[in-house]
Amino acid sequence: MPELRKDPVVGRWVIIATERARRPGNFVDSFDKFLEVNGENCPFCQNHEIPIYVASKNGSHPSATGDVRVVPVTNSFLNTKGKFVRQSSILYDVINGFGMHELVIETPDHVANMADLPEDQIRLVLETYVARMNEFEKNPSVQYVLAYKNYGERVGNQRVGHSRSHIIGLPVNPLRVKEKLTGAKDYFDRKGACIYCDLLRQELNFKKRIIAETDHFVALTPFAARFLFEVWILPKKHSCDYAKGVVGFEADLAKILKILLMKVKVGLDERAYTFVVQTAPFRRKKAYSQKWETIEHDFHWHIEIIPQLTRVAGFEKGTGFYICSIPPESMAEYLREVEISH
Amino acid sequence: MPELRKDPVVGRWVIIATERARRPGNFVDSFDKFLEVNGENCPFCQNHEIPIYVASKNGSHPSATGDVRVVPVTNSFLNTKGKFVRQSSILYDVINGFGMHELVIETPDHVANMADLPEDQIRLVLETYVARMNEFEKNPSVQYVLAYKNYGERVGNQRVGHSRSHIIGLPVNPLRVKEKLTGAKDYFDRKGACIYCDLLRQELNFKKRIIAETDHFVALTPFAARFLFEVWILPKKHSCDYAKGVVGFEADLAKILKILLMKVKVGLDERAYTFVVQTAPFRRKKAYSQKWETIEHDFHWHIEIIPQLTRVAGFEKGTGFYICSIPPESMAEYLREVEISH
Repeated sequence: MPELRKDPVVGRWVIIATERARRPGNFVDSFDKFLEVNGENCPFCQNHEIPIYVASKNGSHPSATGDVRVVPVTNSFLNTKGKFVRQSSILYDVINGFGMHELVIETPDHVANMADLPEDQIRLVLETYVARMNEFEKNPSVQYVLAYKNYGERVGNQRVGHSRSHIIGLPVNPLRVKEKLTGAKDYFDRKGACIYCDLLRQELNFKKRIIAETDHFVALTPFAARFLFEVWILPKKHSCDYAKGVVGFEADLAKILKILLMKVKVGLDERAYTFVVQTAPFRRKKAYSQKWETIEHDFHWHIEIIPQLTRVAGFEKGTGFYICSIPPESMAEYLREVEISH
Repeated sequence: MPELRKDPVVGRWVIIATERARRPGNFVDSFDKFLEVNGENCPFCQNHEIPIYVASKNGSHPSATGDVRVVPVTNSFLNTKGKFVRQSSILYDVINGFGMHELVIETPDHVANMADLPEDQIRLVLETYVARMNEFEKNPSVQYVLAYKNYGERVGNQRVGHSRSHIIGLPVNPLRVKEKLTGAKDYFDRKGACIYCDLLRQELNFKKRIIAETDHFVALTPFAARFLFEVWILPKKHSCDYAKGVVGFEADLAKILKILLMKVKVGLDERAYTFVVQTAPFRRKKAYSQKWETIEHDFHWHIEIIPQLTRVAGFEKGTGFYICSIPPESMAEYLREVEISH
């Protein structure tokens, strides 16, 4: 069973496989093979598994023919088979590979890019995230829930063109989440305001980094972007929590998300991309990191979209110091001007 | 002139180009072209530029035919042409692209991999880092100095097989450095000991993550490795500062570094790799981050080697949550057993 291990210096949790290693040759050879799977052989077109959740436009009910299906990931690094065990020594903390991992199959059709789904289908996916996050919260060992998508992701050596996303429940907070929570909390403690609310007001005033705006959401390039065409989608209404904050605004979020994904598709030549929903950790009475118990006011959920235009270079891996070779203002201008058909 | 911009939430500095953007197409097309330059056309074989520093086995003196040459990087994102200017607003901090960037051409011969240089040549490179770091320290605006190597790095679209490394002087501390300093300082404040000294003792006792050991250095895989075959080389003697701590041990460091680079070369099929020297920031009387003024006892310099076996996936970019699919103990065992000729 895999382990979660904590770096003793910086506090970063890493998922570590513990099975007797494959020899590195296995990795080296398979590094760049890429086979597109057509609809006939697509594992996500077939109903191999009975879904654990189904969302359909006619209301949610379990059925194998629904519009959005959620299936468990059985070969994940994370599972709930074992008992949740945390061991600490002076230097090293370990948790067994406890966690939840589900796949959201976003459409019954063999459509690769979420950008090509109709708005109401995207809305259904966003609602599915809410439903599964609420479900994950019921497990008291789950501290944090991540919903993310890797468009262009391979399954083994194969690239499978069927739109899907992942929901992962973790017993710890990822380092980037911790950094954001710490930064937002520092700001709140100093100024009594949400840093993202202030940022949003300033950006709407400055205009040059805004890509699109709907009634309830703003899409922008961040001031200190790490990646080319990195995009954040922020709700105008303050809320720390996606699953609670998005309720009532799902259709509007689907609208701006579709606009952005279409702009990335058309403007950036169908590159692979990732998006991650950045939400606050569950507020447990007895959380491991008690610091994050009261974060109603000092976090602000958002979505990050990262198109894969450049590799992360060794320099950046080694130092955490990123180089962004296009100004965020130019990236916003470019994406703003990309014309998409509705 | 480029800018350094600080992410207002997490405090990460990013280098941002400010020139009117190239269209993204420029990036997309050139992404995977790869031309090996032979010795005849290699810009590093020729003496195009008068070196600003030369180290030779017969003692350091400026000469264009020396063994290790240092030349300025004229097209770098960082330069010292402009005056150092730092501007702050409530949310956003900007520094103009002030910084120093030099290239260390490690050999007059067209040898691609540092692993293939003789030990005394590697020692000369390590001594050159010391000399340039000491030189960089004289500039009062330089807060942090980075020595790093990207083996397999491209220059434009071309892969140039001539062993070289970079030295960069920054007016700020990179986020990963800050994280390590904060973690090491926390531990020192709690326990009155250096976390790396404690870690080293524990690892030497445990043995399973040790790859190689010399009189003065230990090479190991970290407990919570982020990357496949990530390796740390730590000096046994406590010192926060590479340029001061390595003095007298350069030959021994060259020995263990050559062993490790050969093991990576032979064992991992000549993959590209990065190494970064992780040292403490300069201890300025009036540093911007006054917190790091007294870190003699609570940091411990080391070298990180990161072979490029896997890409950083979107999931990891978005969350900072890494998955390492081989246990560090197996990685260490594998590298320990790789046989290299001396």
